[in-house]
Amino acid sequence: MGMSQTKEESLYIGIDGGGSKCRATIYTHDYCILGTGVAGRANPLHGLAQTFQSIEESTQLALSDAGLKPSDSRRLIAGLGLAGVNVPRLYQDIAKWQHPFASMYLTTDLHTACIGAHQGEEGAVTITGTGSCGYARVGDKELFLGGHGFALGDKGSGAWLGLKASESALLDLDGFGEKTLLTQRLLQHFEVSNALGIVENLAGQSSSTYAKLAHIVFECARLDDGVALDIVREGANYISQLVRKLFEISPPRFSMIGGLAEPLAPWLAEDVLAKLSPSLQPPEWGAAFFAQQQYTKA
Amino acid sequence: MGMSQTKEESLYIGIDGGGSKCRATIYTHDYCILGTGVAGRANPLHGLAQTFQSIEESTQLALSDAGLKPSDSRRLIAGLGLAGVNVPRLYQDIAKWQHPFASMYLTTDLHTACIGAHQGEEGAVTITGTGSCGYARVGDKELFLGGHGFALGDKGSGAWLGLKASESALLDLDGFGEKTLLTQRLLQHFEVSNALGIVENLAGQSSSTYAKLAHIVFECARLDDGVALDIVREGANYISQLVRKLFEISPPRFSMIGGLAEPLAPWLAEDVLAKLSPSLQPPEWGAAFFAQQQYTKA
Repeated sequence: MGMSQTKEESLYIGIDGGGSKCRATIYTHDYCILGTGVAGRANPLHGLAQTFQSIEESTQLALSDAGLKPSDSRRLIAGLGLAGVNVPRLYQDIAKWQHPFASMYLTTDLHTACIGAHQGEEGAVTITGTGSCGYARVGDKELFLGGHGFALGDKGSGAWLGLKASESALLDLDGFGEKTLLTQRLLQHFEVSNALGIVENLAGQSSSTYAKLAHIVFECARLDDGVALDIVREGANYISQLVRKLFEISPPRFSMIGGLAEPLAPWLAEDVLAKLSPSLQPPEWGAAFFAQQQYTKA
Repeated sequence: MGMSQTKEESLYIGIDGGGSKCRATIYTHDYCILGTGVAGRANPLHGLAQTFQSIEESTQLALSDAGLKPSDSRRLIAGLGLAGVNVPRLYQDIAKWQHPFASMYLTTDLHTACIGAHQGEEGAVTITGTGSCGYARVGDKELFLGGHGFALGDKGSGAWLGLKASESALLDLDGFGEKTLLTQRLLQHFEVSNALGIVENLAGQSSSTYAKLAHIVFECARLDDGVALDIVREGANYISQLVRKLFEISPPRFSMIGGLAEPLAPWLAEDVLAKLSPSLQPPEWGAAFFAQQQYTKA
């Protein structure tokens, strides 16, 4: 623990670690934003050292943005929302960290995203961006669904849409699959003329490369391309199922977050759309709120 | 070029570079085996330095096995079958190598595998192991099909079967997918009790980890599990389509090679099975034959 401070003087930092970026925001006790910082990926599943480095970097950037000194990290009560910390081994690895904060409270990125979306209230969220998953928390009931990662799961996500589109185009080019507009669009996207060119651009690439192809799938679906329509409908159907499953624990509120929430929405089942409420705050807010709850409880 | 030698004195080395192993065999001009060596992966798509190192290591092991000196590599006329060298950039990267041989002739691993399977004659092959692909060469016609790599393509391969099984088990465990025996079998295989345990064992793993699950899919299919049957049939159906497509250029002979050739065979279409002939020589033999053809032509 750092210096003693009254609850009103306390500063909070909410940190949202993700597969591509780590975002940090410093808040006063009543949620005025003092400064923000963004650094590279902070996903413990992809390496602890990088995760710690991105957290420190985003913290320093937020401190500087707030007009505070680097050593002021010791004044911050930190809330961290990180992927993978529902795995006990990873939770412990992070919890053992010699962190630079006054105190640190750790939970999953899904939990902090959900707290943010509902501004501190309980509820359910789907996160559809590069990956996809669902989360709900009501009382002591907690539900994680999907989020198994590329290419194991994450149906309906950007990476999944991009992978399905690429598979379909390659089957088409080999003369097996159904003919599809996706083929021409992917050849154009990569500026290549054959299957090998597509493979060269995708072999060994991470989920984010595939996720960049998602908008092509939506475009082709809007042009009534049969293969693209099948892909988008299969993905959206999975997300609809996922939402219905989340409602089994009766969350009072439901939001969709992530870059694909908007393009996916028109393809969801009507009963699911009827339950949708806007997301109110970002995950960093949720992380700061979580830290404040834990800290003032302690 | 190394020392001058008559065609009868020439020694050949056939090298088959793959995603998990690099196999080298030294042959006399009339295909007596003098020595063999096996080293780690030699797939230029996964790194040139490692590829060169594995080629050198397997060569040295084969020289030693043949009772020859390390410097005798300079006497060898080398044939290399390597994945990915149908990509011009990779072909050039390998061709520019300051190799340790008297001379080096480079072609794709599919080409050398096909030459080997038909003992120097033209024909078609499917390779179904960790990955899957088809290849045929007749006169100046050459056909590559599939082989787009994990998880982009390679339907019917070990990695694809393992991935489909894992996806199905995770959907089942989340309460979405059809119930399947695969779920229990995968939980047992990884000695875990839930979806997270499976994900922890598979996240970020390479195709070979998934390919190790293939036998579970065949087992469950033989036990009439609906999901496993669907996976095996979809994979085998793709391989059957692939073979029919290879026959469009009328290969005089057709073989299946790779670790999954045998378990897949009973699931193939009858017209495809009717065309199947046994594979006669390994890819290293094909690589040496290719080198001899090129060398004696030069």
